[in-house]
Amino acid sequence: MVLVKKREGVDGTMTTLVLVSHPQLADSTSQQFLKESLPDDDVVWEHIEGQSTLDVTKEQDQLRHADRIILQFPLYWYAAPAGLKQWEDTVLTRTFVYGDHRDPLAGKELGIVVTTGMPKQAFQRGGAENVTLDAVMAPLAALAHRAKMTWLPTFPIYQFSYLEEPEKLQLVIDYQRYLTQKQPDSLTNRQEWFAHRLSAMVDQLPAEQQTTGKLIASIFDQNRAHLDQLTDTLAMIKEQEDD
Amino acid sequence: MVLVKKREGVDGTMTTLVLVSHPQLADSTSQQFLKESLPDDDVVWEHIEGQSTLDVTKEQDQLRHADRIILQFPLYWYAAPAGLKQWEDTVLTRTFVYGDHRDPLAGKELGIVVTTGMPKQAFQRGGAENVTLDAVMAPLAALAHRAKMTWLPTFPIYQFSYLEEPEKLQLVIDYQRYLTQKQPDSLTNRQEWFAHRLSAMVDQLPAEQQTTGKLIASIFDQNRAHLDQLTDTLAMIKEQEDD
Repeated sequence: MVLVKKREGVDGTMTTLVLVSHPQLADSTSQQFLKESLPDDDVVWEHIEGQSTLDVTKEQDQLRHADRIILQFPLYWYAAPAGLKQWEDTVLTRTFVYGDHRDPLAGKELGIVVTTGMPKQAFQRGGAENVTLDAVMAPLAALAHRAKMTWLPTFPIYQFSYLEEPEKLQLVIDYQRYLTQKQPDSLTNRQEWFAHRLSAMVDQLPAEQQTTGKLIASIFDQNRAHLDQLTDTLAMIKEQEDD
Repeated sequence: MVLVKKREGVDGTMTTLVLVSHPQLADSTSQQFLKESLPDDDVVWEHIEGQSTLDVTKEQDQLRHADRIILQFPLYWYAAPAGLKQWEDTVLTRTFVYGDHRDPLAGKELGIVVTTGMPKQAFQRGGAENVTLDAVMAPLAALAHRAKMTWLPTFPIYQFSYLEEPEKLQLVIDYQRYLTQKQPDSLTNRQEWFAHRLSAMVDQLPAEQQTTGKLIASIFDQNRAHLDQLTDTLAMIKEQEDD
């Protein structure tokens, strides 16, 4: 199954491809939650195991078209489910990835959204898993490197079923930002992302609320400018301290 | 397809299970070569993709019975082919691996035989792959740790198709030792492995060559004892130097 979201009237935004690998997607509350949390931007969402057969040409076209590619899956034995590996082995032919020196994936971003039933502290030496999530992502990071893609910091979701409502709301925002916010995740990029969203929200308000909405947006912009100044000042002070 | 080898009349030897993952085994010259190189010891060889369906009970029984488990595969995108992951996701149920605190795999050895078309020097930072083979094995090493298995140093076979005849002969011996020699790969364990093999060979000689055969075996044993003495002396000298 493929879901295509497109925000109307917005040009020049990034296209994100979310490839979900899960053998029983309908039974996964976390995957259903993430699906409902998809931002209203240019996002193509595809369930890998949901394709009856993998259409290599279509999959490669999707990859070519995307600016950011997200692989999203539960961690099974320290890796993605077999379905994603099958997708890799089938779709990512050598000719496609680095044949003829065309490198069609070069410059695109590769991000990983991984869910696990284990807590965060398990993933460290001495922890229950005795290995970091970053270390077990080595094969995918190596793939990104080979394809000349930019590897994004992994987005882990620990023990989704134990999350309280406020944590879930935070997760929605963080997840949306991971899918569509400009990288790196700096204060400036974060603010820009929120400002973008705010102005889109204001545009959708009914006429009688437009003025209030625009006022809020303008205050947000002022605060942003003020914050930028403070950040610059702080950077200058720090620089002097380093001398 | 499953192949069971058993050396007759030898008791107390180790049982090795070789699980081969390759989507087109018949077309793989390296896998065919390794299959023909299997030692005449207690070795069970199975082609994962060759099973029409994975019989979980049978697979788990095989694992329980083995002392050393070898996963053998070509490196596809820095990991095993999808078939092996499917096997992991299906056969290695949580209940089996660490349910009820029985840990049926605890203490067994896990070894990896991996073939790659890239040269050895590609697998290092700055090399063509920019990552070590050891690093990309992190998910399998973590699995071994979780199952309380002993992780053996990986056995890599680089660019099999370029190997000359003497290198292939060396590969046969090294591969057989990796499958059945006692670990670690020390001088003593290596000698023991060869001695064991030599005496088995002598037993199979025709009657008229038995005397010569036994003479060779006895010389080998004498040399071994002599070598052991020299090794001890050398160790003593080194110890004094460290003072």
